[in-house]
Amino acid sequence: METKLKELGQKVLENAARTEEVLAATFEEKDEDLQKLFDAEAYSLLGGGKRIRTFLVNEFCRSLGGDLDASMPYACALEMIHTYSLIHDDLPCMDDDDIRRGKPANHKQFGYATALLAGDALLTKAFLVAATNPHATAEQNAEAVRLLASAAGDRGMIGGQIMDLHGETEQLSFEQLIRLHSMKTAALMECSALLGCLAAGYSVDTPEAKAAREYAKKVGITYQVIDDILDESGEEDTIGKNLKTDSSHNKTTFMTYFNAEDAKKYAQNLTAEAVSALSDWETSATLTDLAAYLVDRTY
Amino acid sequence: METKLKELGQKVLENAARTEEVLAATFEEKDEDLQKLFDAEAYSLLGGGKRIRTFLVNEFCRSLGGDLDASMPYACALEMIHTYSLIHDDLPCMDDDDIRRGKPANHKQFGYATALLAGDALLTKAFLVAATNPHATAEQNAEAVRLLASAAGDRGMIGGQIMDLHGETEQLSFEQLIRLHSMKTAALMECSALLGCLAAGYSVDTPEAKAAREYAKKVGITYQVIDDILDESGEEDTIGKNLKTDSSHNKTTFMTYFNAEDAKKYAQNLTAEAVSALSDWETSATLTDLAAYLVDRTY
Repeated sequence: METKLKELGQKVLENAARTEEVLAATFEEKDEDLQKLFDAEAYSLLGGGKRIRTFLVNEFCRSLGGDLDASMPYACALEMIHTYSLIHDDLPCMDDDDIRRGKPANHKQFGYATALLAGDALLTKAFLVAATNPHATAEQNAEAVRLLASAAGDRGMIGGQIMDLHGETEQLSFEQLIRLHSMKTAALMECSALLGCLAAGYSVDTPEAKAAREYAKKVGITYQVIDDILDESGEEDTIGKNLKTDSSHNKTTFMTYFNAEDAKKYAQNLTAEAVSALSDWETSATLTDLAAYLVDRTY
Repeated sequence: METKLKELGQKVLENAARTEEVLAATFEEKDEDLQKLFDAEAYSLLGGGKRIRTFLVNEFCRSLGGDLDASMPYACALEMIHTYSLIHDDLPCMDDDDIRRGKPANHKQFGYATALLAGDALLTKAFLVAATNPHATAEQNAEAVRLLASAAGDRGMIGGQIMDLHGETEQLSFEQLIRLHSMKTAALMECSALLGCLAAGYSVDTPEAKAAREYAKKVGITYQVIDDILDESGEEDTIGKNLKTDSSHNKTTFMTYFNAEDAKKYAQNLTAEAVSALSDWETSATLTDLAAYLVDRTY
């Protein structure tokens, strides 16, 4: 198991490094009038995180025999949407977080207005990058935009954020909490998996894409359960953001319904279901390792 | 001339009414958990304005023999992007405007966080609607997304907004001011014209699309010049927003460089050039009337 996790860790690092290069290349062209905006976008987009979402896109594509060239633009689009959501989430009118990934939040570094616009710009750029993927057909690119916009929109991630806001002032039912995170976190994970399938030539109605979606949905919810556990008990320095902001806001989280031990069990069951969704899939070992890694992560 | 303007006014009204219906239909499906978000989106998107941008999309398509069914989804996408930009522009961290189109700004009505998310949601929805236009090909839809994202992104509208923010603290050169408005206002107008051409089957490299773009760029700058004149001299009740916010912010505007009379002349020259761009175009009478109407508008 340890060797497997080490190999997975290596693959995750390689993917993150490759993604970083491609993302950085989109900011090569300078412009004096607009540089502050570009810098604000790049500040949050680059140098960050494990890039799990792009890993999902690229790995699903690879495991279905697809080409990394075809999946990478979709993976980058996904990462831009994820980053924009973090910038807007951290704003004073939202979660009001000053620290993100161990450095000042975008609005602390660039000011409120520029952070707002940098988020808007990354969201917009995501669709530009997906729609112009040169290694896919127009059909695939239009479908990629549809998948991204559905997952990120008012019935996806943003819908989840609105429910999250409600959850700060009134307690959500467990069903609402699951729905919230299905939209807020899992929708982009599902989108990652589906984009990987799409890049490899498997559209949403194929059995492969359906299994991929099922896996990603469960992994997505697991991700949030673990986040909630870590937010209660983790080390601030390791995680790189202010902790206990959720419970200090009286927000409904999985810890409203579970103690840490039961939450972990719940996450482990979801992970088993995620892995089982890919049981007919011969080339999915890396993806099942990933699910195991994510449920056991400590940051 | 008066009859022509009356006919044009009738066409603008008809287009606005038809657009309103199509936009409203996108909010028919209710959802208790998400209703506040949907309501906030619809509040700013519906019931508003002359819909000049959608008129441009639909009229360029019509004048090239295209079908309204094909252009309307692109027009709606454009209107969603325009509306999101107004919602975010009005936020306290941006222009801090309390009134828009004669009613409370989105954040005054729904709160800061919901307004932010409603803007994000409309931007996202725009790409969903464009990418899934059922009356166009996947090639057209992917290209529509590219046009929209380019015009609205960090080298388009958002770039213009960043320059606008700079213009509040340091004076912009005239060239920078033109660049600002080419991006902030004209880019979406150009995009409108190009989307209309695209819907009719004319891609950006056709002579028709090039002429349409030239026209729209000039009309776009004119639009902003007239806005600046009205902002200095117009009647608050007629325009439906707080006036003189620009000069009270010490913002660089066309009135920094012109008196009202010279600004009007400048706008009239631009309009003549816009009309001239369509001089080989037999079916463009409505579009030339529109240019004449926009330069003479008083609200």
